Amino acid sequence: MTRLRRLSAKRSQRDRDRVFVAEGAKVVEAALDGDVAIEAIYCDTGSSGLSALEPLLERARARGVRIHGLESGVIERVSDTVTPQPILAVVPFIDRPMASITAGVVLVLVDVRDPGNIGAVLRSADAAGIDAVILSDGCADLYNPKTVRASAGSLFHLPTVRGGAPEEVLSHLEASGFVTCATLARGAQDYADAELSAPLALFFGNEAKGLEAEFANRCSTSISVPIAGGAESLNVAMAATVIAFELARRRRRGGREALSMNV
Amino acid sequence: MTRLRRLSAKRSQRDRDRVFVAEGAKVVEAALDGDVAIEAIYCDTGSSGLSALEPLLERARARGVRIHGLESGVIERVSDTVTPQPILAVVPFIDRPMASITAGVVLVLVDVRDPGNIGAVLRSADAAGIDAVILSDGCADLYNPKTVRASAGSLFHLPTVRGGAPEEVLSHLEASGFVTCATLARGAQDYADAELSAPLALFFGNEAKGLEAEFANRCSTSISVPIAGGAESLNVAMAATVIAFELARRRRRGGREALSMNV
Repeated sequence: MTRLRRLSAKRSQRDRDRVFVAEGAKVVEAALDGDVAIEAIYCDTGSSGLSALEPLLERARARGVRIHGLESGVIERVSDTVTPQPILAVVPFIDRPMASITAGVVLVLVDVRDPGNIGAVLRSADAAGIDAVILSDGCADLYNPKTVRASAGSLFHLPTVRGGAPEEVLSHLEASGFVTCATLARGAQDYADAELSAPLALFFGNEAKGLEAEFANRCSTSISVPIAGGAESLNVAMAATVIAFELARRRRRGGREALSMNV
Repeated sequence: MTRLRRLSAKRSQRDRDRVFVAEGAKVVEAALDGDVAIEAIYCDTGSSGLSALEPLLERARARGVRIHGLESGVIERVSDTVTPQPILAVVPFIDRPMASITAGVVLVLVDVRDPGNIGAVLRSADAAGIDAVILSDGCADLYNPKTVRASAGSLFHLPTVRGGAPEEVLSHLEASGFVTCATLARGAQDYADAELSAPLALFFGNEAKGLEAEFANRCSTSISVPIAGGAESLNVAMAATVIAFELARRRRRGGREALSMNV
């Protein structure tokens, strides 16, 4: 197995080398925009889409990034998708230490196991102007290729923190003066009625089980997204999207720090 | 290829037989709750999870549904997932004629190609209390197994309409007195500021290209979800979720027909 394939397939390899694989032109472009020290770019020399990538490759060359051509079929073996894009980059880890998170509105994912959901949360959080996303231990890997792909480049746009037991994350945020808010599938206050103020940390739980009751009780408050119709629940990424955009709506009405429902 | 495999894999087979495959206990349960005349249920007799399905199978038997055991390995060949669930049902089409859509708030998908996105829209629409979802010609199939799975049962909870050219859908809804509202990636009025009233039809376009400008111009109004941060855009399912839940929020404040931003 090549190193590229191992980086794509194995968290242990990524953790050892502290780099990950970013697939696709948009994601590679976001990495370039994000001023990350890209280790190398690989592109499929047999791809009919190669000429469209030339401006991107030119930018990368100007930044001194090494570019390697791969023969047709190699990217297919590296990528975990059936129809991979003709370009990928090997990029150093970009997560930050927990101690760097001291203000704003942050989302904390607890035991979210599906990398696609984590990528979708990153994309929505970025689009809603959330300040950081924290993945506690037990979540799927921030650098899983499915996470990176689903984030559509947003992984490079907002600060992320990787790891820490959920209780440690909670303790750090409490100690830093954050309002800690558990999001529950049902039974808590309507998110749209909740008076919330920054610094604010919103906790989201596992896809099947949500947050454990004991953990939720340690948070200073809790909210739910009311569910109409026959739907059992919202997917965690959808719930995070709804809440993040409600906060964005309030900010547009009331200015950066205004998260009151009345603005 | 067995008929089950063909139903799972081929739209043409589904359209000929006017039935589709609903996989997984939750989806089969939603079909039973939805009072659909299930053609048959198939379950994996070798599955360790079979005993947990017994209450569901008992309900189905009481309704006179035929239940067939499949030997281990058969469901894997029928399903398009790597780790299929041990139960599936063959269910008659449940979409409604366009003429049945005469009131309320409906979402119209135009050229949405990813079945997972369509399923996610169904799930969010259901959870937000949307009255119907219309898939115009050019969308992925409502009955694609990926759509059905991603809808998490919501396909059985809210009325759906399948087909009709986008222009025909628009004409029908206009003639029925709907406010027609195009959702655009950027440049239109902030959805949170938009005064909207039912009957209301919200149009969402293709994942890559959005709605065509000419089509959007035929709508009576248009809205955008403002994007913060470096994110390029919201995924169509996320945009539909944000807007549908904003309407749900207004309704909770102002009663069923109140979609004004000021309630």
